Amino acid sequence: MSVEGFSFEVLGEDGPARVGRLTTPHAVVETPVFMPVGTQATVKSLSPTEVAATGARLILANTYHLMLRPSADLVARLGGVQRFMAWSHAVLTDSGGYQVFSLAKLRQISDDGVVFRSHLDGSKHALTPERAMQVQALLGSDIAMALDECPAGGAPQPDVERAMRRTSLWAARCIATPGPVGQARFGIVQGGSDEALRLAHLAEISAMDFDGIALGGFSVGEPIEVMYGLLEVLGPKLPPDRPRYLMGVGKPIDLLRAVGSGLDMFDCVLPTRNARNGQALTWGGRVNMRQMRHREDEAPLDAQCECPTCKGYSRAYIRHLVHAGEMLGARLLTEHNLSFYAALMREARLAILERRYAKFARDVEARMIERDEVGQT
Amino acid sequence: MSVEGFSFEVLGEDGPARVGRLTTPHAVVETPVFMPVGTQATVKSLSPTEVAATGARLILANTYHLMLRPSADLVARLGGVQRFMAWSHAVLTDSGGYQVFSLAKLRQISDDGVVFRSHLDGSKHALTPERAMQVQALLGSDIAMALDECPAGGAPQPDVERAMRRTSLWAARCIATPGPVGQARFGIVQGGSDEALRLAHLAEISAMDFDGIALGGFSVGEPIEVMYGLLEVLGPKLPPDRPRYLMGVGKPIDLLRAVGSGLDMFDCVLPTRNARNGQALTWGGRVNMRQMRHREDEAPLDAQCECPTCKGYSRAYIRHLVHAGEMLGARLLTEHNLSFYAALMREARLAILERRYAKFARDVEARMIERDEVGQT
Repeated sequence: MSVEGFSFEVLGEDGPARVGRLTTPHAVVETPVFMPVGTQATVKSLSPTEVAATGARLILANTYHLMLRPSADLVARLGGVQRFMAWSHAVLTDSGGYQVFSLAKLRQISDDGVVFRSHLDGSKHALTPERAMQVQALLGSDIAMALDECPAGGAPQPDVERAMRRTSLWAARCIATPGPVGQARFGIVQGGSDEALRLAHLAEISAMDFDGIALGGFSVGEPIEVMYGLLEVLGPKLPPDRPRYLMGVGKPIDLLRAVGSGLDMFDCVLPTRNARNGQALTWGGRVNMRQMRHREDEAPLDAQCECPTCKGYSRAYIRHLVHAGEMLGARLLTEHNLSFYAALMREARLAILERRYAKFARDVEARMIERDEVGQT
Repeated sequence: MSVEGFSFEVLGEDGPARVGRLTTPHAVVETPVFMPVGTQATVKSLSPTEVAATGARLILANTYHLMLRPSADLVARLGGVQRFMAWSHAVLTDSGGYQVFSLAKLRQISDDGVVFRSHLDGSKHALTPERAMQVQALLGSDIAMALDECPAGGAPQPDVERAMRRTSLWAARCIATPGPVGQARFGIVQGGSDEALRLAHLAEISAMDFDGIALGGFSVGEPIEVMYGLLEVLGPKLPPDRPRYLMGVGKPIDLLRAVGSGLDMFDCVLPTRNARNGQALTWGGRVNMRQMRHREDEAPLDAQCECPTCKGYSRAYIRHLVHAGEMLGARLLTEHNLSFYAALMREARLAILERRYAKFARDVEARMIERDEVGQT
């Protein structure tokens, strides 16, 4: 909790919602913040300059992917992940655990850690709590995540409890592993959809010497109202003096709800992945750019948006690019979607500072649901 | 030959090689010039701003693709191809004929024109010399190409002669079709690999009222030395007062040879397509970015190059992106390759103006062949 170059302070509050300033060796970031996902040391389709132009100063990179290709040792020799990818701002790395469970083959998990085979070439690798920290030390991220076990959505209670126990055990071993100067460490709270288990695990993880606390194991298939309900309970119980990170979430409305419960940091592939599928995310909900109605539309994606896509290109052209399978379509939609997520967080921060967050979130939600093309699922 | 806003003047000569200035309604272009290919109204992977930053002011778009998707009528209603794709400089469109012969299904060709089915949805379309001009008028390009018949490489002499006869017939009908204000028209010379046929057809097409003359039917499988030899003969016979365009060519060395024979304009998918396959084109020949030797190389692709890729990214990172199948890899290599082609033409113009072109071309060729990784084929 005293990492050189890392600090967090709360600048304003409105009920459970709060505005903070997170300082890392590579960036000063206002929270609530959305972190674009740069899985393989690139935010898919964009240059680092374009990512920064959306407003982002902190992105997520995936340890699992980078340890397999090009390898953590190589990234270290090339000066760390920021220098490797020519990104001059901050990077958070996950522990690699989540991808081991979702992508790798032939996993063998024990209290010691997990042994798996690469989904790329079948090569054998081990990830222990210590190794997860060592790999992230080699990657040189600003923020490293402790290794956790994330039970599948709807897992039976004994599995959830075993994952909690193991996650706590691993968290302590992560803390005990020496880390590089200036790298902060966040612990992860599990506990499935059970309020009592979540609160118990939150207490365990919060008691450890982590620089931030993350909520893992959400958005794994549970009804969204269950997550909202748990966030309302858990948010105010999270340590007030440390950043609070909701992992892998989510849709714009999910972010608004989580901010309203006091969460500070978010990541999700949704804005980038959906962009590659032709979907724009706007103040008026989701827009499917494949639709015929955009065919001759010279208007921008979102009249309220100041991003290069909305300033420079018509819906008609973007629809053409999406239909023709052209990379530029994915790029323009990715640029827009990340700019929109950044704007959503910026407006949320302003609303909190002006103590009108509840009304802001309600109004934005209502407008999105009313105009959404796809229907909130 | 007196199109409003269109002109060409020769600024300097060195043997058959020459420097010119081509003025269109949307750009002033120094020749020799390479035109990046923007098949579907986008130079694959790049934004218009990035294309312009490579030095390009004139790009090629494909009539066949655009007439099928999104349709020439739609592009016209949206203000023409330049406005549609947010490209503020000049565009040359081909006639659509070449793609009908290479991509479309169930072609029926006659002296009237060609009837074909779309490779996208099987819909039936007709392309006549008149229709080719009408479609290009709707697209609103700066330069339109006459419809021609391009015989396959190695076609027997009667087929080559029939294609020549038909191309001349069609050229006259193109000329007779009213065009929009400010759109120049180029005729196309066929004749296969036979010098006498080429010279005869060149005389026919040059006698017509075209604003520029193109050489079609090269780089269709004939030995490259045959093309070089024919260009040496044909170049000096092309009308001196009009721009001379060698269609679909080619490799850097091919461009140097053609410039040496007096050609002014070129297009080819090679720098953009090869970029997407991980190949960089440099002053030291071709570089395969998949190779292991780039794994830890912090050097840029080409130390001589001033492009954003070479200024901002290491070979190690580009290799990683190519291996990981990331779009940014294709983008960075496309940006570099087009910047290199533009630089090659810029240096060629300078060498011509300074009357040292033969030595320049010889030196560049020698260096490329010496260091080329793949071997000139």
